[in-house]
Amino acid sequence: MEKAAPRALVLFADGFEEIETVTVIDVLRRADVQVVTASPGGGFVAGSRGVRVESERRLAGLSARDFDAVVLPGGMENARTLSVDPDAQRLIREARRLELWVAAICAAPLALKAAGAIGGARLTSHPSIEKELAGERYHDDRVVQDGRLLTSRGPGTALEFALALVGGLCGPEKAAAVAAPMMVR
Amino acid sequence: MEKAAPRALVLFADGFEEIETVTVIDVLRRADVQVVTASPGGGFVAGSRGVRVESERRLAGLSARDFDAVVLPGGMENARTLSVDPDAQRLIREARRLELWVAAICAAPLALKAAGAIGGARLTSHPSIEKELAGERYHDDRVVQDGRLLTSRGPGTALEFALALVGGLCGPEKAAAVAAPMMVR
Repeated sequence: MEKAAPRALVLFADGFEEIETVTVIDVLRRADVQVVTASPGGGFVAGSRGVRVESERRLAGLSARDFDAVVLPGGMENARTLSVDPDAQRLIREARRLELWVAAICAAPLALKAAGAIGGARLTSHPSIEKELAGERYHDDRVVQDGRLLTSRGPGTALEFALALVGGLCGPEKAAAVAAPMMVR
Repeated sequence: MEKAAPRALVLFADGFEEIETVTVIDVLRRADVQVVTASPGGGFVAGSRGVRVESERRLAGLSARDFDAVVLPGGMENARTLSVDPDAQRLIREARRLELWVAAICAAPLALKAAGAIGGARLTSHPSIEKELAGERYHDDRVVQDGRLLTSRGPGTALEFALALVGGLCGPEKAAAVAAPMMVR
């Protein structure tokens, strides 16, 4: 019997960074990961550059138990919302407790910190929020993996971040197979 | 008096490639280009990996005269639609006749060919459609510029493509200023 496809939950709120959000959804689906997109209110959400994108589900009622990965794209307003939304915070904590993959890019590591979910792991973020992560084991690599915590820096690293998550969920061969027809350098 | 911001029209239909579409909108808006998004029917359009994105306008009634650039993201179904939609074809022809910037990535050069709008210019595309561009001056660089025709290869080249268009519309200094905080390599 074939192994079941991994499942990933991508959380975003108004002000999400469009490239970071869409890149991870697109790349995960190219890798046959079952992706569910969700936002605090469900439905259409406005990105940081005015692009409206549909989220399939509301955060309330979702459980991290139904997923293998929880993904947090960036965008400052989005990250601030995910840092205070009780369901987003609950899902992040559940995901870390269950040892799922947790992936956050750009400003989104702020939501991990707010949830007390970093747990001493090495991480990176957009440089503009480095000071807010003072006291953490901060690195400036484009993608930082520590166990199943994956962090990255901005729209220009979104493809590497998404492919690293595919590597973690599906293996490096799958990541390479997805990258080639996308014309990744 | 400050120079008016350049204006770009981004055309897409069902089956658009999400990364290519959102990257060019996001990067152009970061460069303060006035972007209008449009699709044959207007409203929400479904991408090739199931992400629904809002288009602000319907193609009918738009004129290339109101823009400095017309941009065609890829995705095979999208490219096939833009190759036969009368308004998309009209806008492409108008844009070339008016010597606007015309930018097409991935499968979208097919819509240029259908419009008879290549005019002997050097171009590239996703490798999967190279045969359909037989007889054209085909190159395999990641971004190819010939006058104001800009073409590129796939999701992995979308950021370079978008920044090249910013360079054309706003100058290389602006492109560099936009790229830096995005953490482009």
